[in-house]
Amino acid sequence: MSEIYDLIIIGSGPAGLAAAIYAERAKLSALVIEKEYISGGQVVNTYEVDNYPGVPGIGGFELGMKFREHADGLGAKFLIAEVQSIQNIEEKVKTVCTDNGNFETKAIILATGAKHRDLGVPGEKDFAGQGVSYCATCDGAFFKGRTVVVVGGGDVAVEDALFLARGCEKVYLVHRRDSLRAARRLQEALFAAENVEVIWNTIVTEICGDDHVEAVWTEDVKTGERKALTVDGVFVAVGMLPNSSLLKGLVEIDEQGYVAAGENCETNVTGVLAAGDVRTKSLRQIVTAAADGANAVNSVQNLLVF
Amino acid sequence: MSEIYDLIIIGSGPAGLAAAIYAERAKLSALVIEKEYISGGQVVNTYEVDNYPGVPGIGGFELGMKFREHADGLGAKFLIAEVQSIQNIEEKVKTVCTDNGNFETKAIILATGAKHRDLGVPGEKDFAGQGVSYCATCDGAFFKGRTVVVVGGGDVAVEDALFLARGCEKVYLVHRRDSLRAARRLQEALFAAENVEVIWNTIVTEICGDDHVEAVWTEDVKTGERKALTVDGVFVAVGMLPNSSLLKGLVEIDEQGYVAAGENCETNVTGVLAAGDVRTKSLRQIVTAAADGANAVNSVQNLLVF
Repeated sequence: MSEIYDLIIIGSGPAGLAAAIYAERAKLSALVIEKEYISGGQVVNTYEVDNYPGVPGIGGFELGMKFREHADGLGAKFLIAEVQSIQNIEEKVKTVCTDNGNFETKAIILATGAKHRDLGVPGEKDFAGQGVSYCATCDGAFFKGRTVVVVGGGDVAVEDALFLARGCEKVYLVHRRDSLRAARRLQEALFAAENVEVIWNTIVTEICGDDHVEAVWTEDVKTGERKALTVDGVFVAVGMLPNSSLLKGLVEIDEQGYVAAGENCETNVTGVLAAGDVRTKSLRQIVTAAADGANAVNSVQNLLVF
Repeated sequence: MSEIYDLIIIGSGPAGLAAAIYAERAKLSALVIEKEYISGGQVVNTYEVDNYPGVPGIGGFELGMKFREHADGLGAKFLIAEVQSIQNIEEKVKTVCTDNGNFETKAIILATGAKHRDLGVPGEKDFAGQGVSYCATCDGAFFKGRTVVVVGGGDVAVEDALFLARGCEKVYLVHRRDSLRAARRLQEALFAAENVEVIWNTIVTEICGDDHVEAVWTEDVKTGERKALTVDGVFVAVGMLPNSSLLKGLVEIDEQGYVAAGENCETNVTGVLAAGDVRTKSLRQIVTAAADGANAVNSVQNLLVF
């Protein structure tokens, strides 16, 4: 434990890598700690990304690598380690404890992202990126004129169904209960959409196809009746799990488990920031994560001056 | 006046083009109105951009064109026109009046950007992008180990000087008054920086060089004494002029003239949004403008449902 870093960035998805890029350009002494050898976060498992402005139609893995190469090119320093805890978080010099050593730093950016909740049914993993998606905003445009099913009953599921209904021929919404949790006005819009059909009290039990999704098996949870739905895509919208456990009990966390931080990425503890999918925000996209990385470093710079 | 658009985007810099990309992917009927044939906003006049994550070391013009091609590829609709006024702004259907026709729309995203205030001295235009910069965060890294001068006395000028001091050999701060307007703590940090020299009561009267900046002429405003400073770069930080006049008197504008809108880009008038450099925010960068475009369209989608 010799050097005191200006900044430790935990996580190397778009938010963490953008933060690394901005930190290097700002000449901060920064260390990026990542859990796995492959940088890029969720994006590396995305088949095609077509909504990162200026970089149309690129493979998710390739885009993740471009972010990484950008950071590498500027001299960013990476460490493969699992962060186990953060100590002295309220102090000016904080300690990040990992399975590969402990590190002192003046500021921490948590950029650990979030995971989409899985359905956990056969076929789901096999067809990930081949018809199974966890983000309508990201992938919906690939299903223009096709038939898709959305699974879920909350705001995001209904927003996804409405979003998809504008481009798709037909949208099924499969929900395990007999009513939606989504906001009333979203529900009204959903029921008014002519090409959306809600299938109540029903779960998806299997996703089938050859090299891409062709159908799902559904089961009525009341009658046990099984039916096949012919679809080209499955949008899973059953919630997200933010990777915020490192900060639990240390900074303010919102009701859904995200780190409470606004556009400037500052938490309620000085010098502790949250960037990307792990923080409270309304739109979780690569470009908004990348912007967070820039904003978080800007906040750190202001902090280091003071 | 036949079609009622879901969305009219005014301006085609990174924020406007990102909004166009997201609007097309969301299948909104959208029109982008731009003043000039060349899309891209301020970025097209930037010599090199090295801080748009994932796209290192690209010409500003080339990056602007990549954004434009992305939007074009998704079928975005553009109109060359000068917007003269916005009518019925409080109504559900608003009217955008231009010198090339009037258009009805349910939502408007103002993405007209901001201009950097010029010094207005000989050489300033000739060396733009060849040593003269209006953005230390953007261009500072190109001056590593070099000598630069920052012109101005506000928060941004001092932040820029501190930012540059971390990478540059020597930083002059030239200010026309005998005290700084910048926050006290910024000033303290400035005075503590060993490689920063503040030159008081002085203006820059000319920027000189061959194919890039080599020196500036300064003049003491009290004594009239002229001196040459040998520098590799000039950072002009004498303020910004947001292009917010179209919304003046119609929506809330902040003290500096920016449109008052938070991360979701919503103004105080329903259906009127501001994205990019024209809105109140702490960091004006290509990536934060692009994120605004995405967030603004997300807000419009929520609005159109309701």
